[in-house]
Amino acid sequence: MIEVEVKARAPPGIEEKILGIGGVEMGEEAHLDLYFNSPSHDFARTDEALRIRIKEEGADLTYKGPKLDSETKSRLEVRVRIEDPQAMESILESVGFSRAAVVKKRRKKYALKEAVLCLDDVEGLGAFLEVELAGGEDWWAQKRTALDIMAKLGISESIRESYLELLAEGRSGP
Amino acid sequence: MIEVEVKARAPPGIEEKILGIGGVEMGEEAHLDLYFNSPSHDFARTDEALRIRIKEEGADLTYKGPKLDSETKSRLEVRVRIEDPQAMESILESVGFSRAAVVKKRRKKYALKEAVLCLDDVEGLGAFLEVELAGGEDWWAQKRTALDIMAKLGISESIRESYLELLAEGRSGP
Repeated sequence: MIEVEVKARAPPGIEEKILGIGGVEMGEEAHLDLYFNSPSHDFARTDEALRIRIKEEGADLTYKGPKLDSETKSRLEVRVRIEDPQAMESILESVGFSRAAVVKKRRKKYALKEAVLCLDDVEGLGAFLEVELAGGEDWWAQKRTALDIMAKLGISESIRESYLELLAEGRSGP
Repeated sequence: MIEVEVKARAPPGIEEKILGIGGVEMGEEAHLDLYFNSPSHDFARTDEALRIRIKEEGADLTYKGPKLDSETKSRLEVRVRIEDPQAMESILESVGFSRAAVVKKRRKKYALKEAVLCLDDVEGLGAFLEVELAGGEDWWAQKRTALDIMAKLGISESIRESYLELLAEGRSGP
């Protein structure tokens, strides 16, 4: 599945603005994200990612392909729910993968028509907003929708780096 | 976990013999096993295996380490239950793994104290019996138990090759 995603630093008062344009609160999640590097490909160079995400209600393994355009973070994403994240990490390490980084954040989610808005408080980085849509063959149109939502919220910035990359660069919030 | 495992070709009348030494039928399973090779290690040379097993009631991803002795198939085994085997295969292929082989079998399981006896009918190979025990630090003792069970059933053979290896060698049943 193509995940269409636009990300920006969250400006002050963003929650009121999201509610103001019709966003509906969906609840809050705590994420512990373990990123892995491959023994055969350097994911930082190939712009890929392999991640175990651990949430209160369960865990998943996710692969993210290289980004598809120069404006957004849209990319192929494949996700599988796993029962035991520790066993999964042990398997990945057994076949040569190594843990590259850990990202911790709290995510507040809002539904806005077919989009999901994620207000993230990332440990060591600060607050960010991500607008996500599940794209199919029309992912290009979904991308416009995501950029339009950002514009309605008064945001023109689009950060293409992942939290992993931002942490590696040592760029924390303002 | 160390999985202690002894395998042999199943002789005629083995089911009656298993019941005769106190084995209790636990039911039957159909297995579709997808084996993968690594982009960085040749698992056939390193004596490792990475497998997606699909059963009626669910799927798992399993890593098997190199065999620990010269008499049995005992080895480290790490298993994680996964929700969507197709997504798992897609992730493995995205990070460079390739499907090496498919093994299909029907497995009839029997409990015998702490051991599990698996009577396998493997497509293209024939009938085999595996005696399995979950070993900890005392896996050496468990190994004796497994070999003793085989002896009670009148079996002295111990095949250390996996079904995958037997299929690659083209060795079918008698």
